[in-house]
Amino acid sequence: MSATPLRPAIVLSSGGLDSTTCLAVAQSEAFAPLYSMSFDYGQRHRHELAAAERIAKHFDVAQHRVITIDLRQFGGSALTADIDVPKDRSEAAMAGDIPITYVPARNTIFLSYALAWAEVIDCDDVFIGVNALDYSGYPDCRPEFVESFQQMARLGTTRTNFSVHAPLLHLTKAQIIRRGVELGVDYLMTHSCYDPDDHGRACGRCDSCILRKKGFAEAGVADPTIYVVSPRP
Amino acid sequence: MSATPLRPAIVLSSGGLDSTTCLAVAQSEAFAPLYSMSFDYGQRHRHELAAAERIAKHFDVAQHRVITIDLRQFGGSALTADIDVPKDRSEAAMAGDIPITYVPARNTIFLSYALAWAEVIDCDDVFIGVNALDYSGYPDCRPEFVESFQQMARLGTTRTNFSVHAPLLHLTKAQIIRRGVELGVDYLMTHSCYDPDDHGRACGRCDSCILRKKGFAEAGVADPTIYVVSPRP
Repeated sequence: MSATPLRPAIVLSSGGLDSTTCLAVAQSEAFAPLYSMSFDYGQRHRHELAAAERIAKHFDVAQHRVITIDLRQFGGSALTADIDVPKDRSEAAMAGDIPITYVPARNTIFLSYALAWAEVIDCDDVFIGVNALDYSGYPDCRPEFVESFQQMARLGTTRTNFSVHAPLLHLTKAQIIRRGVELGVDYLMTHSCYDPDDHGRACGRCDSCILRKKGFAEAGVADPTIYVVSPRP
Repeated sequence: MSATPLRPAIVLSSGGLDSTTCLAVAQSEAFAPLYSMSFDYGQRHRHELAAAERIAKHFDVAQHRVITIDLRQFGGSALTADIDVPKDRSEAAMAGDIPITYVPARNTIFLSYALAWAEVIDCDDVFIGVNALDYSGYPDCRPEFVESFQQMARLGTTRTNFSVHAPLLHLTKAQIIRRGVELGVDYLMTHSCYDPDDHGRACGRCDSCILRKKGFAEAGVADPTIYVVSPRP
C-alpha cells in the first residue's frame, strides 16, 4: 500500500461565504495539506479576519497566514478609505460600473503573495473564490484575468505548473450556497458584510449583504446570518 | 501655445544601478511627473533604501513611496533570510541555476503594487529595470514575464492601456552604464552590493558587485563605487 502523494493547496480566505466554500471544494477534491491566507489591508470589516481564523481552525489547515498590506495608502475605495459604503442599491445599480468598493489591483496583489508562498512550500495550486456572475463590476473577477494571472505566474516563477483554481467563477450565489451546503459548510462561521456593527452583526443593506440574502433565498436555504436589522419581507 | 499633456510614469527604484538608469530613461522619454516606488522587504542591503531616497530627491520625483512588505516570512532567499550571500563566484556559476538570492515572486509583487498605485493616480506606465542578459537566473527578469504581466494587468484592472517598460531588458551591464552616463547619471548615488558593511561600502565580491565592476570595466567608465576591499587586479 503506497502513501497518497501530497497535493498541497493554498486557499485565499477572506472569512466570507465564497472563499469558505472554496476551502470546502479544495478539501473535497483531495488537496492536502491545505494552507489558508488572509489579508489585513485596512478594510473596515475586520470581523472578516476573525472569521477567517475561525474557519482555518475549523478546516484544520496546516498553516493560516495573515499578510498585512497597506492598500489604504493608495486611497480610492470605500472598503479602505473614509467613504460611505453604499446601501440599499438595486442589482442594476451594482452591475453597472466599477463599484466604489473596488480596491485597486486587489486580487493581483493577493494572488502574488499566494504565488510567493507557493514557491516556498512547493505548491502548484491556489484557490480563489472569485465570481464573475453575481457581481461583475470588478475587472479582477473575470475568467480572462484568472487565466492570465496563471500564465504570468508560470513564466515569472519556478512553478511552471502553477494553477489558479476559481471553482465559483461561473456559479450564481445560490449555486455557491447549495454547493457549500452539500459539502457541509456552516455559513454561520462566515462574514460578508461591508459595514458590520461593533459586534460583527451584518448591516443587511450593503451590496454584499443584499447579494448574500438573495443567494440564501434563491437556494432555498435558511439564512443563518445575524443581522442588525431584520431582513425586509 | 498648448500645455504639454501629462504622461505620468511610476519607476520601481531599488537604489541600484539598473533602476536609476531606468529613471533617467523615463525622464529622457518625457514622462512627467515621475513617481518612484521602493520596497522594504527585510533585505539585508537596507542601504538600498537610503540610496533610493537620495535618488528620488535628485530626480525631483512628484512622490517617492516606500512599501513595507514582509517577504521574510516566506523564507527561501539569502537576501531576506539568514543564509550567507555567495562570494567570488564565476559568471558561469551565476548563470547556472536559479540563484540562492532569488526572492519568491518578487517582481510580480513589486509590479502588482505599482499597478495598484497606477490605478489610483491614473497612470498607464510603469518602468522596471529588469535585465535578461547579464543575470539570467531569475525567471521574473525574462521578456515573456514582462509581457505577460502587462497583459494580466490590462485584464485585471481599469488600466486597459497599462504598459510595463523594461528598457534595459536586452542591454549588457556595460551598455546600461554607457546609456546612463550619456543621460548624466552619477552612479556614485547608487547601491548594488548584496552584503555591504555598516557604512554602506560595497563588499566587491558578491554576484552583484562582480557584475557591476565588470560592467564599468567593459564600458570603459571609471567605477565610482566605494568598496571595502580593493578590486582585484
